[in-house]
Amino acid sequence: MVGIIMGSQSDLPIMEQAANFLKTLEIPYELTVVSAHRTPERMFDYAKTAKDRGLKVIIAGAGGAAHLPGMVASCTTLPVIGVPILSSNSIDGWDSLLSILQMPGGIPVATVALNGALNAGILAAKILGSADNEVSEKLQGYQDSLKDKVLGTVDDIKKIHPNQFD
Amino acid sequence: MVGIIMGSQSDLPIMEQAANFLKTLEIPYELTVVSAHRTPERMFDYAKTAKDRGLKVIIAGAGGAAHLPGMVASCTTLPVIGVPILSSNSIDGWDSLLSILQMPGGIPVATVALNGALNAGILAAKILGSADNEVSEKLQGYQDSLKDKVLGTVDDIKKIHPNQFD
Amino acid sequence: MVGIIMGSQSDLPIMEQAANFLKTLEIPYELTVVSAHRTPERMFDYAKTAKDRGLKVIIAGAGGAAHLPGMVASCTTLPVIGVPILSSNSIDGWDSLLSILQMPGGIPVATVALNGALNAGILAAKILGSADNEVSEKLQGYQDSLKDKVLGTVDDIKKIHPNQFD
Amino acid sequence: MVGIIMGSQSDLPIMEQAANFLKTLEIPYELTVVSAHRTPERMFDYAKTAKDRGLKVIIAGAGGAAHLPGMVASCTTLPVIGVPILSSNSIDGWDSLLSILQMPGGIPVATVALNGALNAGILAAKILGSADNEVSEKLQGYQDSLKDKVLGTVDDIKKIHPNQFD
Amino acid sequence: MVGIIMGSQSDLPIMEQAANFLKTLEIPYELTVVSAHRTPERMFDYAKTAKDRGLKVIIAGAGGAAHLPGMVASCTTLPVIGVPILSSNSIDGWDSLLSILQMPGGIPVATVALNGALNAGILAAKILGSADNEVSEKLQGYQDSLKDKVLGTVDDIKKIHPNQFD
Amino acid sequence: MVGIIMGSQSDLPIMEQAANFLKTLEIPYELTVVSAHRTPERMFDYAKTAKDRGLKVIIAGAGGAAHLPGMVASCTTLPVIGVPILSSNSIDGWDSLLSILQMPGGIPVATVALNGALNAGILAAKILGSADNEVSEKLQGYQDSLKDKVLGTVDDIKKIHPNQFD
Amino acid sequence: MVGIIMGSQSDLPIMEQAANFLKTLEIPYELTVVSAHRTPERMFDYAKTAKDRGLKVIIAGAGGAAHLPGMVASCTTLPVIGVPILSSNSIDGWDSLLSILQMPGGIPVATVALNGALNAGILAAKILGSADNEVSEKLQGYQDSLKDKVLGTVDDIKKIHPNQFD
Amino acid sequence: MVGIIMGSQSDLPIMEQAANFLKTLEIPYELTVVSAHRTPERMFDYAKTAKDRGLKVIIAGAGGAAHLPGMVASCTTLPVIGVPILSSNSIDGWDSLLSILQMPGGIPVATVALNGALNAGILAAKILGSADNEVSEKLQGYQDSLKDKVLGTVDDIKKIHPNQFD
Repeated sequence: MVGIIMGSQSDLPIMEQAANFLKTLEIPYELTVVSAHRTPERMFDYAKTAKDRGLKVIIAGAGGAAHLPGMVASCTTLPVIGVPILSSNSIDGWDSLLSILQMPGGIPVATVALNGALNAGILAAKILGSADNEVSEKLQGYQDSLKDKVLGTVDDIKKIHPNQFD
Repeated sequence: MVGIIMGSQSDLPIMEQAANFLKTLEIPYELTVVSAHRTPERMFDYAKTAKDRGLKVIIAGAGGAAHLPGMVASCTTLPVIGVPILSSNSIDGWDSLLSILQMPGGIPVATVALNGALNAGILAAKILGSADNEVSEKLQGYQDSLKDKVLGTVDDIKKIHPNQFD
Repeated sequence: MVGIIMGSQSDLPIMEQAANFLKTLEIPYELTVVSAHRTPERMFDYAKTAKDRGLKVIIAGAGGAAHLPGMVASCTTLPVIGVPILSSNSIDGWDSLLSILQMPGGIPVATVALNGALNAGILAAKILGSADNEVSEKLQGYQDSLKDKVLGTVDDIKKIHPNQFD
Repeated sequence: MVGIIMGSQSDLPIMEQAANFLKTLEIPYELTVVSAHRTPERMFDYAKTAKDRGLKVIIAGAGGAAHLPGMVASCTTLPVIGVPILSSNSIDGWDSLLSILQMPGGIPVATVALNGALNAGILAAKILGSADNEVSEKLQGYQDSLKDKVLGTVDDIKKIHPNQFD
Repeated sequence: MVGIIMGSQSDLPIMEQAANFLKTLEIPYELTVVSAHRTPERMFDYAKTAKDRGLKVIIAGAGGAAHLPGMVASCTTLPVIGVPILSSNSIDGWDSLLSILQMPGGIPVATVALNGALNAGILAAKILGSADNEVSEKLQGYQDSLKDKVLGTVDDIKKIHPNQFD
Repeated sequence: MVGIIMGSQSDLPIMEQAANFLKTLEIPYELTVVSAHRTPERMFDYAKTAKDRGLKVIIAGAGGAAHLPGMVASCTTLPVIGVPILSSNSIDGWDSLLSILQMPGGIPVATVALNGALNAGILAAKILGSADNEVSEKLQGYQDSLKDKVLGTVDDIKKIHPNQFD
Repeated sequence: MVGIIMGSQSDLPIMEQAANFLKTLEIPYELTVVSAHRTPERMFDYAKTAKDRGLKVIIAGAGGAAHLPGMVASCTTLPVIGVPILSSNSIDGWDSLLSILQMPGGIPVATVALNGALNAGILAAKILGSADNEVSEKLQGYQDSLKDKVLGTVDDIKKIHPNQFD
Repeated sequence: MVGIIMGSQSDLPIMEQAANFLKTLEIPYELTVVSAHRTPERMFDYAKTAKDRGLKVIIAGAGGAAHLPGMVASCTTLPVIGVPILSSNSIDGWDSLLSILQMPGGIPVATVALNGALNAGILAAKILGSADNEVSEKLQGYQDSLKDKVLGTVDDIKKIHPNQFD
């Protein structure tokens, strides 16, 4: 089971990309809003009960001065994946990115790209797949499908541009 | 009473500048280490009991992904002053600065310059002085002394460079 | 009484967020335009008479090379809150942010996030509330209401995504 | 088993921090140099045989235009942790950080802070611990020891500064 | 013959500017999609066979953590021109730019400006023209045409603004 | 007489702001396109004949890798004002700004803000006014008019917000 | 007469480069410390009396949130040259640079490179030379001497590296 | 023949890395100082005569507002390689990097990494090798030697860390 949390409902359209990927691979997840700054007790409860509730990985997305991923990581031994989100009044995303990535020694957050919730979902599956062959085989299938999509575009472009390679 | 906290003992040489200023103005303070990531419960206790313990302002300094000032601010109605600290492996201080400054709507942190603990001490005094004339008069004296120091350097420089203004 | 000033009428839609918050808490304020560069004398008069006119805190917002908050701070012992504003032809807000935040030792400005006028209003209330229990209780009520809003979104999202936590 | 690779022997002093942490927790690892640009075939072999050789997680560190973590991630279903390294002639580490973090949708790299090899080691343990209670208990012990170290510094500082909290 | 490759079909509108320039100069090219992360084997095959297939220069465009140009350069002795592309969720293009430009000693990529595929085409022609007088004469013609276009605008502007120079 | 030049006709809407200001003050100007990269000889001729043609100041605007202001400055003893222009495919204007501002010792360019052509016009007038009282009096009038505009907005805002200062 | 001012005595080693250049050209100058934040009245007096005291140009250097050049420019019609200075606790100089350069429409500051006080001196001379042939001839001599120094190094390098050009 | 030029003698220690590489491959070069700003005529002469003097490629290195590579490119059809150099008073190299890389459409500069003169030498050889099999074979030998050096370090590290891969 993967836990997906985000600092604000406005992050939902981005963070649902993680949920959707997990659904595709039939990996169970839960998803809710947990705000580090507006509901600090809720955040602590969430983090501290996560392992006992059966979570294996937590994905946490937040924008601006994004403290949620790091604070959750400080209260659990589960791996925490951080998704920097480009929020309004952000300075081009730098604030969220650095607030999540630059954690001090001792408390890591596995950070993905700006708005990279899809990759957070994939990374969660890779973590589960590290100990679960069924998941890792599905991931191999997914990785093969990425290749097939590229090869499809190769054929399209070949119709309008010379291509001596393929 | 002003509370001064910092994320790590390595921040002490910077953060003592706040304490020293308050001492000069005979404003009582307390100072200790509170780590958002390594001692999250301690941080919550500190923040939640601050007002009842008689604190009027909290100064919080931290480096890297600096969550201490913002998390403390989320657990108290006291004004919280954040001091971004240039730690080792920081990216030129940008991480600390943005993690403290770019708080979401609802939970402000009064941020000062990089390594600006002296200014954090002065700002704390200004906040106290807003309701305490004795403190604000001392601050006026301090501001006058800054002017006097500048005028002293004017005299020094006049000996080696022409100056028709003074 | 809180003084709210801004460098240009174009900053009004942002800066009114501070005024509106103070109104909600029934904290009196005054609001006007004071330009550091186009009306320097007016700025000096404003800053120097602020304390005697009964102001307890000043909120100053400005964009670009934003000198208003720092210059006002240099002429008063009142705490000054600076709001960096993302103006047209700004370089992503970095100019305003750094011009306000990176004040030299001796003259602090309590800086909030880019376009963070709402937080400036809250911070002003926190400063008043530091010495006024009625205000700090209202602030506690406001902080509780932020939590309630988050919990409302939790219920909404629960309808479309699994949630084993709540 | 955790695989630790790096783009150059000059990264060894940083990357050994990951190995040392794993040793402390008695987690087996292997460590070698694999250069994306100077030994591309070696990199491919490493990545493609990693799962069958029994690796569960790969930690990859590199500086400058750091392609090693992302390229390895593209050739395996194992989770890959990327460590941006501040190399000579780097532009303050931005090049390495962004080359590792900003992976396109489909191929995540779990990025840690600049020079954050210690955190990469901890994150690898958290990933293993997600499915292995013995490891996660050791991690809990490590996290407790971080807290104890902070409390030790509290006592030291109490001798030179007032502290009404503890 | 110039090889033009890009990491994704979404880069085509930018990368076609290189193809169009080469067409204008009657320099043969081939163009296709080669993804470093989704089709790593294809990328290696492309790079390793490039010289034997008669390519003289390779132009490679990619966005985000852009590894394609550098990885191709590591597998061929041909000069490789890198085009940083501003993709969605990029951090203003910095990620792509630095991932391509900051290659380690030993493996250069000839980097052009953000979205600078036209310049990549011209640079490819300059490289061919370095050993082929016919091409370099066409380039001289192109450079002269740039000058003529400027002089045309001079005449237009002279109608609305005073100009004592021309 | 002030010379106004720009690297491309697309800079005209910005650069006309300089011309319009000079017209208001009845200061003669000439305006044309001079491209450092597409018409280097024209640029040299322009710069070298500028003083003898009666120019007193040159305003040069350019975007991207903006070499025009600095190269013109290297070929004349006249003061050269540089206007960084935010062009398409610029990296937020940083390229133009730094290419103009960071001139080596010996060859200064008087740089104004991004897209700051109005300020370039005013600065040119200030330079002329430094030796011409009629111009400096007009500038004083202009500076007074800026103040009057601010005071006009003060009256507008007073209708909707309390103002105890005015 | 050129006025040279700086925000702090610590800026003197940089700012003396402007004075030294003016001395070389026998252009009279005055030099002193004027702090925008610590001596605001002094700054206003300096700026407002500058023209009547016979100054033709003002050079103002400052670090951090550098308000001196812009504030002086707001109180005089004289051209003001701003020198961003890299002070301690600066964020790589960006704060000073942007605080001086990004002035709003109406109040220009002629900004030179970081620590570019030599260029500020040369620019001041160029401004004077715009109306004074004697000065502009000296500047031509200076520009010629720069060329001669380069040619001297050409001869040195020719002894150790092949050179078919000279 | 490769032409190597630089804006200042202080760039020599960096730029000699290009010369040394070419010497190793027995590719003839010439090397001298050509300053865009201090010797503009010399720069034009160099660029315009380059092709007729037998040059096939030009390598140009410069720091700060680095105009040399782009200006040379505007005066020749030869490929020009630009080396951004981290000079004193640079803003972390960003100025040089962007001044060289962000050339407008029509005039490309093949930019390499900050201080990347070695890579500039290799790139020049790759350009020559594109039409000269003897050179490209030497380059293949060089690329093989890079691989061998990595493998050497693998053996060293194997003595102190476990390695199941090799």
